Amino acid sequence: MTDQPRVVIVGGGFGGLYAAKAFRKQAVHVTLIDKQNYHLFLPLLYQVAIAGLSPADIATPLREIFNRDKNIRTIMGTVTDVDPERKLVYYNRGELPYDALIVATGAVYHYFGNDTWAYHAPGMDGLESALEIRRQILDAYEQAEQESDPVRQAALMTFVVVGAGPTGVELAGAIAEMARHTLTEDFRIANPNQTRVILVEMLDRVLPPFPVELSHKAQQSLAELGVTVRTNTKVLHIAEDHVVVESKDQEKETIHCAATMWAAGVKTSGLTKVLQERTGVQLDRAGRVHVAPDLSIPNYPDIFVVGDIVHFEKDGKVLPGLAPVAMQQGEHAAAACLCRFIHGQPSLAFHYQDRGMMATIGRASAVADLRLVKLSGLPAWLIWLFIHLMYLVGFRNRLIVFLQWTWNYFTFRRGVRLIVDRRVGARD
Amino acid sequence: MTDQPRVVIVGGGFGGLYAAKAFRKQAVHVTLIDKQNYHLFLPLLYQVAIAGLSPADIATPLREIFNRDKNIRTIMGTVTDVDPERKLVYYNRGELPYDALIVATGAVYHYFGNDTWAYHAPGMDGLESALEIRRQILDAYEQAEQESDPVRQAALMTFVVVGAGPTGVELAGAIAEMARHTLTEDFRIANPNQTRVILVEMLDRVLPPFPVELSHKAQQSLAELGVTVRTNTKVLHIAEDHVVVESKDQEKETIHCAATMWAAGVKTSGLTKVLQERTGVQLDRAGRVHVAPDLSIPNYPDIFVVGDIVHFEKDGKVLPGLAPVAMQQGEHAAAACLCRFIHGQPSLAFHYQDRGMMATIGRASAVADLRLVKLSGLPAWLIWLFIHLMYLVGFRNRLIVFLQWTWNYFTFRRGVRLIVDRRVGARD
Repeated sequence: MTDQPRVVIVGGGFGGLYAAKAFRKQAVHVTLIDKQNYHLFLPLLYQVAIAGLSPADIATPLREIFNRDKNIRTIMGTVTDVDPERKLVYYNRGELPYDALIVATGAVYHYFGNDTWAYHAPGMDGLESALEIRRQILDAYEQAEQESDPVRQAALMTFVVVGAGPTGVELAGAIAEMARHTLTEDFRIANPNQTRVILVEMLDRVLPPFPVELSHKAQQSLAELGVTVRTNTKVLHIAEDHVVVESKDQEKETIHCAATMWAAGVKTSGLTKVLQERTGVQLDRAGRVHVAPDLSIPNYPDIFVVGDIVHFEKDGKVLPGLAPVAMQQGEHAAAACLCRFIHGQPSLAFHYQDRGMMATIGRASAVADLRLVKLSGLPAWLIWLFIHLMYLVGFRNRLIVFLQWTWNYFTFRRGVRLIVDRRVGARD
Repeated sequence: MTDQPRVVIVGGGFGGLYAAKAFRKQAVHVTLIDKQNYHLFLPLLYQVAIAGLSPADIATPLREIFNRDKNIRTIMGTVTDVDPERKLVYYNRGELPYDALIVATGAVYHYFGNDTWAYHAPGMDGLESALEIRRQILDAYEQAEQESDPVRQAALMTFVVVGAGPTGVELAGAIAEMARHTLTEDFRIANPNQTRVILVEMLDRVLPPFPVELSHKAQQSLAELGVTVRTNTKVLHIAEDHVVVESKDQEKETIHCAATMWAAGVKTSGLTKVLQERTGVQLDRAGRVHVAPDLSIPNYPDIFVVGDIVHFEKDGKVLPGLAPVAMQQGEHAAAACLCRFIHGQPSLAFHYQDRGMMATIGRASAVADLRLVKLSGLPAWLIWLFIHLMYLVGFRNRLIVFLQWTWNYFTFRRGVRLIVDRRVGARD
């Protein structure tokens, strides 16, 4: 084992996971290190937030994924530094030597310098935040049920989503749908039908990376679900119970709400700065690493960077932070390592196979830009369903999610509407 | 609606839930108030702790249970006081008038005056604690995997369970089973087969309320699973990484361990003292309310007490804090209210239908004392399975739990081994 080349992969998201999978049954010793002990299927995280799925339905322990691959070891830990000369990775419990390093630490939400907003407007980037959003939404209705003042009651049933990319659109649509279909029978005094979901977007349309016609279709579907879309609108301030927004013609408005959710800008994780300091590699304005064509760091052919933290251009445009990009880059970096270590060949340039993108808006409604064909409505939704189930890791999860969805579809119910407090022992 | 008699039920556990269900379709206006928004199926909580089930599998929102019963309203809130003269219940967001009151607030774990132990040894009394126990157990193996010192590694795979009642036995057996069957393939350095589970019991046998022969059967099954049972042993001190115990012959021992779990004494919740102050009712040494034969408080025929907080004797013994007792008492209190309000009849005395008790020890192993017949092994386990599935609230939960169990049984896998940190936004 010690004679085999040692590969360290930092991060168990899509990039790191697909890199590690590519090393299965190869004569390479792999260590996969992540802060969490699980791979999280982020595209479905919003369904945890709206109480449609349980955390375990979309998260799989990394150990379980690789428990039969004796050449792949998983470690739970936080990487703090890299020494490219001595070829060492430092983490909170020690150090790991490497012959090749694949960095796939991903992105987190970015509040444009307003870090206090993070507290009031959790982002959709982890199980903890998704559960916190769920708690806030459900708790708001509980309060609304006991509120006699109609103005305050209305505020308790108002939710603001900042950012109308795929995550923001999916979240806003799902909240509106939950309010109208799932919760209506549950309350005696509050009327969840009066829920207001306000989707705030700085640009002039929802789903900016999509073709204009699909943006319009999505906007129409959102309106049908009762989501108020506010394009050309900027967020000025976020507090616990209100958001201040400003429209393009500089009209300010205070929206009183029960919860605000953040689905706007992302930034790269802390490790990119470490790489910059240690290797002198260039970062772009968003903090992404300017990699060589084979995804390695220029002059450091044994360090690869993949996923959301990569600046890689195709046809003059930077590849977006999407799961398929990360998966393909992870696989490419692994292939490049194998080329070099096993076959003694130089690595090839990365080429992204763009198969399009999609976003779901609600029950039987989605938009899909599959490059050759643009779809919306039920056909797009069925494709969305199929692809997400296919990529969901682990048979058990696939089965349970499929059952939950079928159940939700026919009954309009959501089973996991639990308000679980983060504080342990908060009793009496 | 305002002409109808108003019943307030405090607590949505087994007692309160079955009381509320008994009021369905009756000409009575019911308000069910609980600190949580869900009913928790406590008998299966240990399976959440050992990553066998997700919280949502054993918890059902109270609103969902009663969403078609227009005469039953649910409120999430904490009751702080009762005024028996003005017939008012005070809670954190207001007050509720009642014509009859049913108090079913249940018990919480009691650390015999050592309240700091609660921090190091969470009890099996809520989703939060169960998730914390899960986090501690899984995190311990992650640390063991990175520990080179064999003594420290052994301590990281040692778990102490305090109290060998049904909950303690089930928890200890389940941890041992998880270590030996589920985790073995997951680790490269640590060997979960070397896990030590130590079950500490002050009395001279496990499952003290059961017949002696079943205690012995259970102890044998525990030994086969690799659980070390320490009867006649007292806990002197609990710290983060060790427990000090003392045997009957006063031999002290320090056990170094990764996590300690509490399944020993319980005490009644805070509301019993309020009832004592306001009505002068007697409490027993464990804080339970001495009720009249119909479960009302003497001289207060409109206040009923049910479940774990009740002192009710049958054949000279106090009824134990079990789900069947609470269910039957809840139903009885509701029937007593209906008698009085609807039929103008005096209420009857409560009689407990004792159908026995059971505890599961592991895969295909349980003990059941069904009064007429005593069972152990597979037959007892199948009955345990059937009864627990039958009483689990909600068809969806029943289906999902059944599927998970079938899956676990045939694959030895546990799907929900996630370490979710309580702190939101703990990143980088």
